[in-house]
Amino acid sequence: MDCVAAVDVGGTTMKGGLVARHGTLLRVERRPTPRAEGPQRVVAAISGFVADLAEPGAGTRPLAVGVAVPGLVTPTHAVFAAAFGWRDVPAAAFADVDLPVTLGHDVRSAGEAELARGAGDGDVLFLPVGTGIAGAMTLSGSLYGGANGWAGQIGHIPVRPDGLACGCGQRGCLAAYASGGAMAARLGVPGAADVVRLASEGDAEAVRVWAEAVEALAVALATYTLVADPAAIVVGGGVSQAGDALIVPLRERLAHRLGFRQAPRVRASALGPLAGLIGAGLLAWRSLAG
Amino acid sequence: MDCVAAVDVGGTTMKGGLVARHGTLLRVERRPTPRAEGPQRVVAAISGFVADLAEPGAGTRPLAVGVAVPGLVTPTHAVFAAAFGWRDVPAAAFADVDLPVTLGHDVRSAGEAELARGAGDGDVLFLPVGTGIAGAMTLSGSLYGGANGWAGQIGHIPVRPDGLACGCGQRGCLAAYASGGAMAARLGVPGAADVVRLASEGDAEAVRVWAEAVEALAVALATYTLVADPAAIVVGGGVSQAGDALIVPLRERLAHRLGFRQAPRVRASALGPLAGLIGAGLLAWRSLAG
Repeated sequence: MDCVAAVDVGGTTMKGGLVARHGTLLRVERRPTPRAEGPQRVVAAISGFVADLAEPGAGTRPLAVGVAVPGLVTPTHAVFAAAFGWRDVPAAAFADVDLPVTLGHDVRSAGEAELARGAGDGDVLFLPVGTGIAGAMTLSGSLYGGANGWAGQIGHIPVRPDGLACGCGQRGCLAAYASGGAMAARLGVPGAADVVRLASEGDAEAVRVWAEAVEALAVALATYTLVADPAAIVVGGGVSQAGDALIVPLRERLAHRLGFRQAPRVRASALGPLAGLIGAGLLAWRSLAG
Repeated sequence: MDCVAAVDVGGTTMKGGLVARHGTLLRVERRPTPRAEGPQRVVAAISGFVADLAEPGAGTRPLAVGVAVPGLVTPTHAVFAAAFGWRDVPAAAFADVDLPVTLGHDVRSAGEAELARGAGDGDVLFLPVGTGIAGAMTLSGSLYGGANGWAGQIGHIPVRPDGLACGCGQRGCLAAYASGGAMAARLGVPGAADVVRLASEGDAEAVRVWAEAVEALAVALATYTLVADPAAIVVGGGVSQAGDALIVPLRERLAHRLGFRQAPRVRASALGPLAGLIGAGLLAWRSLAG
């Protein structure tokens, strides 16, 4: 079967797979992201993952490659990624194979996949909260990229001006409070799931970090609502797997932050953590169509 | 000559006029907004202004009426305006004349006029800073209204969460720091021009209020830039008449607030304080075309 090879590079885990036309996943594989080993090692790990996936297999024939990465990205370059320390990494570095390669922004790729599955009609913000945070804005039914294709950097809006330092070089960013990476680092635990668990057990420091994260998300979503007037906000990513522990207080704090207008609907993602992988595959398919 | 009657209701001054097709102003008149006399008196003053303008005159024949108002607005109702204490005021209350009447949001009307004059192509934020603050978002060359037509409420995004109380009921809004009304009230002077003058003379309190206003605008514009990735930001309204005293430090603070991307161009409005009036006229013309 014709398919494309796709990799979605997350902060702790890379998801790779084969994606049939229209986004059906034929194979999914996870590998750790060797983030601690430096920028070059992450690029090499992606390249190795792509090479393995791009091998013709039993009944599958990959025609193109799509790679979803965080940060500022064009179809041909990873321009800047605070999470990995990348600057101007060309697409070829991520995929040493004889197939067309397209780079996509991980979050917009995920938004694209949610949109293709009908979860993101109309005016919707798709906000995956994972190791990092960024948003994919669907306006009037289409993904909106902005003047330079860099719209939706909601993880780095200043929710607490002059607040906590962020890896991006700014201060008080949403991601410095609410990303899984930042929450885990503040508590000295491996991941956001540990923060949620400790908070549910009543650990005072975890309760405080989690409450600050929810409040930072509420400030950011109130800001987004006032700016863009979305019909709905879809929260995805690893942190959203906290479920009601996140969504219920977030809805309450968002309504509290909005003084003169109703809050949009806030709900969890339909495709979950595989949205970015499916979206990277859809990007690769689109590169073949063009 | 066929024309439309238009009124742009500002916090301290109402501008009324006759607008020919394509936005040429045939007549302009200013009247004070009787804001201190309460919500009903402002509505009555607008209605009287419209009645005077809608009279057929020497060589002019008004065919429709356009009224630009602040807050949340639909073509038929002023839904909510913190500045005037309005809730659900119908269009007929603003214009007791036998002509079609259309309400428009003052800032989006002004943005519409800037766009019609070619000042707002592509991805541009038009942000009038006057008695209040709101924004008109031009995305891919068209004004963007959002799911409910309420996009661009940038004056009420929380630039200092839990900061100064705002007339809208929220805290820490951009408008609570940077609107002409808020700055003047903080210093106990009649208007924003007095704040600018006192700051230029070195008055310590005025210098502080002005610096906080510029910083609040920089936080808001950094936020908008990260969310929507505009090519340019056009600042209008009365406060923008401070000219370089506003634009120069605002550019500097905006660049400072953006850690990993360039700032968009920031410049002053082309039509100045008459943009809203011209835009209200264009709305009225469009109601006739429909």
